[in-house]
Amino acid sequence: MIKQKHFIDVDQLSLKQIEQIFSKADKYLKKPLNSSLKGKRLINLFFENSTRTRSSFEIAAKNSGAEVVNIDVSTSALKKGESEKDTILTLNAMEPDFITIRHSFGGIVKKLAEYSDRAVVVNSGDGAHAHPTQALLDAFTIYKAYKFKKITEFKKLTVAICGDVLNSRVARSNIRLLTMLGAKIHLIGPPTLLPKNMDSANLKIFYDLKEGVKGVNVIMALRIQKERMMSCFIPSISDYFKVYGITRDVLDLAKSNCILLHPGPMNRNVEIESSLAEDPKVSQVLKQVRHGVAIRQAVLELLA
Amino acid sequence: MIKQKHFIDVDQLSLKQIEQIFSKADKYLKKPLNSSLKGKRLINLFFENSTRTRSSFEIAAKNSGAEVVNIDVSTSALKKGESEKDTILTLNAMEPDFITIRHSFGGIVKKLAEYSDRAVVVNSGDGAHAHPTQALLDAFTIYKAYKFKKITEFKKLTVAICGDVLNSRVARSNIRLLTMLGAKIHLIGPPTLLPKNMDSANLKIFYDLKEGVKGVNVIMALRIQKERMMSCFIPSISDYFKVYGITRDVLDLAKSNCILLHPGPMNRNVEIESSLAEDPKVSQVLKQVRHGVAIRQAVLELLA
Amino acid sequence: MIKQKHFIDVDQLSLKQIEQIFSKADKYLKKPLNSSLKGKRLINLFFENSTRTRSSFEIAAKNSGAEVVNIDVSTSALKKGESEKDTILTLNAMEPDFITIRHSFGGIVKKLAEYSDRAVVVNSGDGAHAHPTQALLDAFTIYKAYKFKKITEFKKLTVAICGDVLNSRVARSNIRLLTMLGAKIHLIGPPTLLPKNMDSANLKIFYDLKEGVKGVNVIMALRIQKERMMSCFIPSISDYFKVYGITRDVLDLAKSNCILLHPGPMNRNVEIESSLAEDPKVSQVLKQVRHGVAIRQAVLELLA
Repeated sequence: MIKQKHFIDVDQLSLKQIEQIFSKADKYLKKPLNSSLKGKRLINLFFENSTRTRSSFEIAAKNSGAEVVNIDVSTSALKKGESEKDTILTLNAMEPDFITIRHSFGGIVKKLAEYSDRAVVVNSGDGAHAHPTQALLDAFTIYKAYKFKKITEFKKLTVAICGDVLNSRVARSNIRLLTMLGAKIHLIGPPTLLPKNMDSANLKIFYDLKEGVKGVNVIMALRIQKERMMSCFIPSISDYFKVYGITRDVLDLAKSNCILLHPGPMNRNVEIESSLAEDPKVSQVLKQVRHGVAIRQAVLELLA
Repeated sequence: MIKQKHFIDVDQLSLKQIEQIFSKADKYLKKPLNSSLKGKRLINLFFENSTRTRSSFEIAAKNSGAEVVNIDVSTSALKKGESEKDTILTLNAMEPDFITIRHSFGGIVKKLAEYSDRAVVVNSGDGAHAHPTQALLDAFTIYKAYKFKKITEFKKLTVAICGDVLNSRVARSNIRLLTMLGAKIHLIGPPTLLPKNMDSANLKIFYDLKEGVKGVNVIMALRIQKERMMSCFIPSISDYFKVYGITRDVLDLAKSNCILLHPGPMNRNVEIESSLAEDPKVSQVLKQVRHGVAIRQAVLELLA
Repeated sequence: MIKQKHFIDVDQLSLKQIEQIFSKADKYLKKPLNSSLKGKRLINLFFENSTRTRSSFEIAAKNSGAEVVNIDVSTSALKKGESEKDTILTLNAMEPDFITIRHSFGGIVKKLAEYSDRAVVVNSGDGAHAHPTQALLDAFTIYKAYKFKKITEFKKLTVAICGDVLNSRVARSNIRLLTMLGAKIHLIGPPTLLPKNMDSANLKIFYDLKEGVKGVNVIMALRIQKERMMSCFIPSISDYFKVYGITRDVLDLAKSNCILLHPGPMNRNVEIESSLAEDPKVSQVLKQVRHGVAIRQAVLELLA
């Protein structure tokens, strides 16, 4: 049903398909167990660890009746020198219906998908390139929080994305999807962690957090890789929180019903004040996880 | 059905519930496959490795028709800095029915269970605190070996628990359960590996193995952590066997139909003479494993 | 149905059973999903990593309706000192129907199988000893490629096995099976990597690749362990390719419809010229993977 066979990023979807996905996901939130993927086989092929994304796809597939095989690459043939290409060719020859691929190199999933002539490949995060099911679950979480009836209502929103945008596949897929949906976007972060030349009609760059969150409806905090601290992009974790951490004071500058998202795993008191992250009136973090299962069920069904 | 929602230790159970668990387990020994957990989802969340406990829960859940997702923490988000608390919150948001938790810190499972408002948490061993399904399978093994009809018959028994009692969650849960069941208990081991101030009406401490096993009906040998040898608690492995190893001579001091248990994995010729461990008239070691699956099926059904 | 309960190597099979396996596998190629193993439980016990063999058994078992439990030994009780013997005794006590065992020591699977009085043990590769399902899938691939109707047609064939025969369980099981089927065999490789004293009526040794492939119907290239390069068996990877690599020029010396097999994972441009490995007219590499699932479904059904 999607334009191309494989699902690499959100820009393959039509607005109608996004609406279908949201509508199916809504159904699966209420009644997760069904047999729409009965007899289907999904391989989770993770070249990079991710407990939450792997588990989410596994539970989603099983909820819909599929069988799941997990392949963790640290225990794989790659150690014996098998290339990623041959891994895909080999797994595809075992005739699964889906292969979800996570990899630390941006853009590689699209390349690898070309070697899968049978199984539908689903990008579950590749480097700083894309993470389409994450963007869909984020948008779905906004849609549910604001009790939208139609996706055209996204046009009323301004979404602030705050943090390490430069290295974030989550940010990239979200920017693409929110742009398709007609939302306005504020990118907020230190100059070293923001992309250049991205200004456009619907997107503005802010180096100052307080400026950036003014009047927004949604704040999406991105994960800071502690490893990157070492590379001198930002002086220190505690400095980061002081300048870019989302606190209640920061939130007060946004719209009064502003909601808070984070793709997880969260560093408490680095990206978000811990108590704020747990405030159910504001924080959507656990709803995102819950919605992730339903969205993945919907996406797999659409791709089947 | 259990007093609290989550299953942290055996003292939550009433005697009637223990009887129910044994009765169900007996049924599952004869006919393991059933659909009592059909449509349920169990996550095995192991912060500490244990092939046998993980596999036992996995087979138990699958025997009863549930779906299982395994999460091994060495490949998890904890590496990225996600705390145990956030791991539980996140997994719970994916809406499993059960989360079994194994962790090396005693008492943490009870704490973590508070963060799971949906999934029932089952303690599958936390530090030196508790391992309730192990105690249940041990008691069930005694019950079966002695062909008991009622759990009140435990009152006729004296059970010797021998070895590193101090550091053993298995010993702790067994002491609690056997005390509830009315059995007498002998704790045997070197002073460095026995708890202080535990004497009570039904419990005696012995530093001398031969004294301790005199007239007992059951000997339960505990695993010695070779790592602890290094900490000078006991002089050496071979010294340990000489003084506290269960041999045929030792067994001869107990009641003539005395049986031998070990929670595994066993160090042959350290805790138990190898040939004795394989003598089916005496050793219950493999029966314990077999019963473990049935007991876990029964416990999960009771918790469902 | 097989002479002994456990499946250790191909010499346990009668020609009639091989024919049955091929006939069932053919059926499963067309229609993989069935319920012949419904209610059965298979444990994949891998003491040595192998993504493809483990996944192949997992998908095969699930295709036929069985439940699968994976045990990766690097995360197992062996770390705590549990011996392989006790691991098998323990797992067998959990009452699985099958245990597939992969281990780096040749001959150990037969020994370990003796400790499994309930579960059927399937050798999924032990050291340089045997890998029976691989040999079956290789022979089945030849059978399909040549559109054979009966296994007696193998008598018309000459099969060249090229590379590190000495250290290869794949080669050993293939030599046994092809000999049973009446094919002629050429073993090709450097003297350091070929067994001594193996000449027989149907088997010839060649140190010269061009001599060895002359007129053969099938070339089976074996994987070169890069680790072995270090042991000075062969001077270097690039030297190996120059002397023993299968190129189009080499292939031209064989029969005109000669096919090419490799058990994988393949080192491109070491054992086989990369473009040749991808030529669907010649290379059977991905067919072998596909056939592996169907053959394992057939073998498990025969053993059930």
